[in-house]
Amino acid sequence: MVDREEALELHSKNPGKISVEPSVKIDGKEDLNLVYTPGVAEPCKEISQDNEEAYNYTSKGNLVAIVSDGSAVLGLGDIGPEASMPVMEGKANLMKKFGGVDGFPVCLDAETAGDIVEHVEALEPTFGAVNLEDIKAPRCFRVEETLKKSLDVPVFHDDQHGTAIVVGAAVRNALDLARKDLEDARIAISGAGASGIAVAKFLLDAGAENIVPVDSSGILRTDDQNEYKAGLAERTLASEEQGDLSDAMENADVFIGLSAPGIVSKDMVESMADDPIVFALANPDPEILPEEAREAGAFITATGRSDFDNQVNNSLAFPGVFRGALDVKASDINEEMKIAASEAIREFIEPEEDRIVPDTLDRELAMEIAEKVKEAARESKVARE
Amino acid sequence: MVDREEALELHSKNPGKISVEPSVKIDGKEDLNLVYTPGVAEPCKEISQDNEEAYNYTSKGNLVAIVSDGSAVLGLGDIGPEASMPVMEGKANLMKKFGGVDGFPVCLDAETAGDIVEHVEALEPTFGAVNLEDIKAPRCFRVEETLKKSLDVPVFHDDQHGTAIVVGAAVRNALDLARKDLEDARIAISGAGASGIAVAKFLLDAGAENIVPVDSSGILRTDDQNEYKAGLAERTLASEEQGDLSDAMENADVFIGLSAPGIVSKDMVESMADDPIVFALANPDPEILPEEAREAGAFITATGRSDFDNQVNNSLAFPGVFRGALDVKASDINEEMKIAASEAIREFIEPEEDRIVPDTLDRELAMEIAEKVKEAARESKVARE
Repeated sequence: MVDREEALELHSKNPGKISVEPSVKIDGKEDLNLVYTPGVAEPCKEISQDNEEAYNYTSKGNLVAIVSDGSAVLGLGDIGPEASMPVMEGKANLMKKFGGVDGFPVCLDAETAGDIVEHVEALEPTFGAVNLEDIKAPRCFRVEETLKKSLDVPVFHDDQHGTAIVVGAAVRNALDLARKDLEDARIAISGAGASGIAVAKFLLDAGAENIVPVDSSGILRTDDQNEYKAGLAERTLASEEQGDLSDAMENADVFIGLSAPGIVSKDMVESMADDPIVFALANPDPEILPEEAREAGAFITATGRSDFDNQVNNSLAFPGVFRGALDVKASDINEEMKIAASEAIREFIEPEEDRIVPDTLDRELAMEIAEKVKEAARESKVARE
Repeated sequence: MVDREEALELHSKNPGKISVEPSVKIDGKEDLNLVYTPGVAEPCKEISQDNEEAYNYTSKGNLVAIVSDGSAVLGLGDIGPEASMPVMEGKANLMKKFGGVDGFPVCLDAETAGDIVEHVEALEPTFGAVNLEDIKAPRCFRVEETLKKSLDVPVFHDDQHGTAIVVGAAVRNALDLARKDLEDARIAISGAGASGIAVAKFLLDAGAENIVPVDSSGILRTDDQNEYKAGLAERTLASEEQGDLSDAMENADVFIGLSAPGIVSKDMVESMADDPIVFALANPDPEILPEEAREAGAFITATGRSDFDNQVNNSLAFPGVFRGALDVKASDINEEMKIAASEAIREFIEPEEDRIVPDTLDRELAMEIAEKVKEAARESKVARE
């Protein structure tokens, strides 16, 4: 695992992890006259005639707001916007490194979904896209739904869709290796927060017909007070089954954990169908350690960690997704684009049991995803160029 | 003057003028483990214990929000937030180039002072300071007053205070060359927007006793409906005098124009006192061209333009002011710090008639200003380290 002191030292050196740099040269008075007054008035005038010109004369078209209220940061919970900043800066680093995207942290002191929506709407003139991050459920769903309607720039909640894109690719590659069909597979999903619900929906849309969603109270119920959980229960086996996590996992072909450390036992894995697939993605401590899962018969294991095989992490997806969306000035990041991104990840490798997804550091991957995302944006008519 | 096509080409190349870069290296999996999950959790935990730790582990302490609603951009007026973006990006360029400050544009779709205040308050977790820019008067005054009270980070309205700091230094150097005292000098100020009012207040605080403020309706009146104009009238000769710009300029030792192109005639300059000082700072076209003013007897002339001698431009001040304020984690940019910045500019050169302020491209200047600003912050007890 990572050394605490080393992590703190890296963050305290500058301090922080981002810098804002001029992307044009300012060597003499003539440069200054173009970059600042009086020359700067010319692009201002052009944009004042037509706001779309902002894409031609400002950085807007490559700027992504990485928005969080700090209410659900990593596995740490509601630690507040100040404490969420290192994650958003890290995200900005990865966006630039892998996607050439200028991400900027927007850590907001906001109490409600409505507050977040208002502040982000006000920032639309500055940013070409919005990445929502580490906002707790169900607040994140309301924020995303509202912003997707009100903004002309694309909105993407990475905890939901980034995770769904990557898990979707990983599940399909794993099922191929196990020679099983998505349609027939029983898939137990533990965790009904942003990522759990999004993964379930993504798999449903991809054709899965036997999903059993579970939260800390057991298999979801159609009368759950949380409308998002109830809605998901309606669309899955939870509408017919009751019970706890061990009931959900019995005879399951796939387990996907997006929940809490150590809640899966060897017995539960032993109760699964033949050649079971066990994704224990809770961070940093998984639902069950890969070696234990394998001892209990798991055919393929995955975690969110980099120190085991098969790291299923949404950093595989977002740099390429935003690169693609920005390149075609997409007005949305829609289902078609997410499916295309997932397919791009899936097809990027020849899957093996210890390599069901590409390496997180592969720089070609983001560009490959971007190409597929652009194509999907054009075909689904959300590309604006 | 600057070529329109050249200015548009520079802005459209990337497009835009800023980029967000990682300030730490991400070369391999180990770097990734520190920059992003799981290592990033360590600084998050530290900050969640104490928000002040954000200054030790994030970029906050060097990030400045350059906030505008686009309601008073350059001389172009209310052109909207999208069209203000090139100015804010240019400002970010200068902050970095001269002050090593990470400025970032926050161009807001906001209708009222209250809206701007709410959005900027919500952004406090992200930024170490706020630079207000190109917000129309009197809205800008209300925004600044409110934010200075509500935020723990310093707030600086550059159109007011940046201009006041630089004009203050220039006026005092020019008066020295003319062997006149600030106390005795009659100073006509044309323009009662953000910069005109701020310059008048700054000079009043510095000891000027004979200021005559004028707007497009003539010498200000103590019963003006705009409370800021009425308040200024009370504190100046406008409480005793009436008339138009030519009345204000009669026998004036100094004219400061922060108003509109071409409104000062040679006759008006001829009516001024001996060795008159004429600052025609309207951009891009001054109240009177320097050569005309000199033909009419002006002893010293200045404009806001780089193609004449004596460019009086607030870009001389703000990079150093923010560098200094950020370096000591100042909770405010107070009068003492502004005066210190103005003195630093004044003392940076041995003034001559064609060089009453330093060159805008002098990189030493910002560091000199920063030193003086830090000292003043410590002495006035707003430094937090």
